[in-house]
Amino acid sequence: MGIPKLVIGNKNYSSWSLRAWLILAKLDIKFEEIQIPLFSEGYQEKLFRYSPTGKVPVYIEDELTIWDSLAIAEYLAERYPTLLPSDFKQRALARSVSAEMHSSFFSLRSKMPMNCRAKDRHVESTEELTNDIQRIQAIWTTCRNQNRKAGSWLFGDFTIVDAMFAPVVFRFNTYGVECDSIATEYMKTVLNDSDIKRWYEASKNEPEIIEQVEVGLN
Amino acid sequence: MGIPKLVIGNKNYSSWSLRAWLILAKLDIKFEEIQIPLFSEGYQEKLFRYSPTGKVPVYIEDELTIWDSLAIAEYLAERYPTLLPSDFKQRALARSVSAEMHSSFFSLRSKMPMNCRAKDRHVESTEELTNDIQRIQAIWTTCRNQNRKAGSWLFGDFTIVDAMFAPVVFRFNTYGVECDSIATEYMKTVLNDSDIKRWYEASKNEPEIIEQVEVGLN
Repeated sequence: MGIPKLVIGNKNYSSWSLRAWLILAKLDIKFEEIQIPLFSEGYQEKLFRYSPTGKVPVYIEDELTIWDSLAIAEYLAERYPTLLPSDFKQRALARSVSAEMHSSFFSLRSKMPMNCRAKDRHVESTEELTNDIQRIQAIWTTCRNQNRKAGSWLFGDFTIVDAMFAPVVFRFNTYGVECDSIATEYMKTVLNDSDIKRWYEASKNEPEIIEQVEVGLN
Repeated sequence: MGIPKLVIGNKNYSSWSLRAWLILAKLDIKFEEIQIPLFSEGYQEKLFRYSPTGKVPVYIEDELTIWDSLAIAEYLAERYPTLLPSDFKQRALARSVSAEMHSSFFSLRSKMPMNCRAKDRHVESTEELTNDIQRIQAIWTTCRNQNRKAGSWLFGDFTIVDAMFAPVVFRFNTYGVECDSIATEYMKTVLNDSDIKRWYEASKNEPEIIEQVEVGLN
């Protein structure tokens, strides 16, 4: 097998890219990063060269192409089973909350776009946004309460669920979301992680600015 | 283990419910259906009794609760591996298109809500809607072309992918979407399936009408 490739967008903005990247980073396997800055000239055509959806992330292993962060996560979890909890009940919970993150939280996504390097942004609260934020903290509490003894990730050791929620941690950090104690603790785990720090540093060094998602400035 | 329970919404309207229901129907295992008509009085509170998301479907096995159609699908595919293609490359494709269905096609979902029993509805075309419809047919073509010899479902035999796309088949049927030959053939497979027919018959007998999704009437 050749070195796998991961096609990603801007590290600063592309939440879906972060998920797949973090899983690969945690596996400590060599992979080639192909970065295509989103909204740059011709970016869409470039993306379609890699994936039929024209979206990031795309994971490529020889002639095998896998798109969508959750599909990449499940594919890798098959080969590296520690990416999911070993207990079947915990695994069921892991999949429920990962799928929930994958298909929900539209208010959070649209009002608080991921913008890793930005700080002290403030957006107006709405009922939907508050519900999203509360539900995410409730998810984190459920996972952490069942896995307190094992380690400080959601299910103790790192799993794909942490990758699914990593962009949310950056969002909460950028927009100064008030968190309960479990969420605060979990955010520290994520933000102090060495791979997340590498991603963050890279995001700071990217020259591209996508105006339409630069929200919450005073 | 007691008899598992599946909490679903209206058969006529609840696309996410159909997915989980169809997988269980195909497994030919006994399960108890708990139906909560969406938007009926107090439906939200009733749903929260079963799931922390307040959404359907919810799958319950003794004290284990799994929510979200894709998580239920992956959970069941672990126990019943024939629910996913046996070849790892086909399985990767199956997961890519299932995840894509799970997180995309917003135009199709909002403009062409599932309404199983309705026929001859027509909605105005938009660029996004046309793109969604074309992309779905491209997915079906990709899957069918790689699995022609095996059977008439997307990957030959029935898999979770067919469950993910079953609501789309009803949508295409209701709104008279023009289909290429592969899509036409695949829609016949789905609409002539005995479990789908049972779902359809039940949807016709439901008295509830949800006005806001009754679109496309002349």
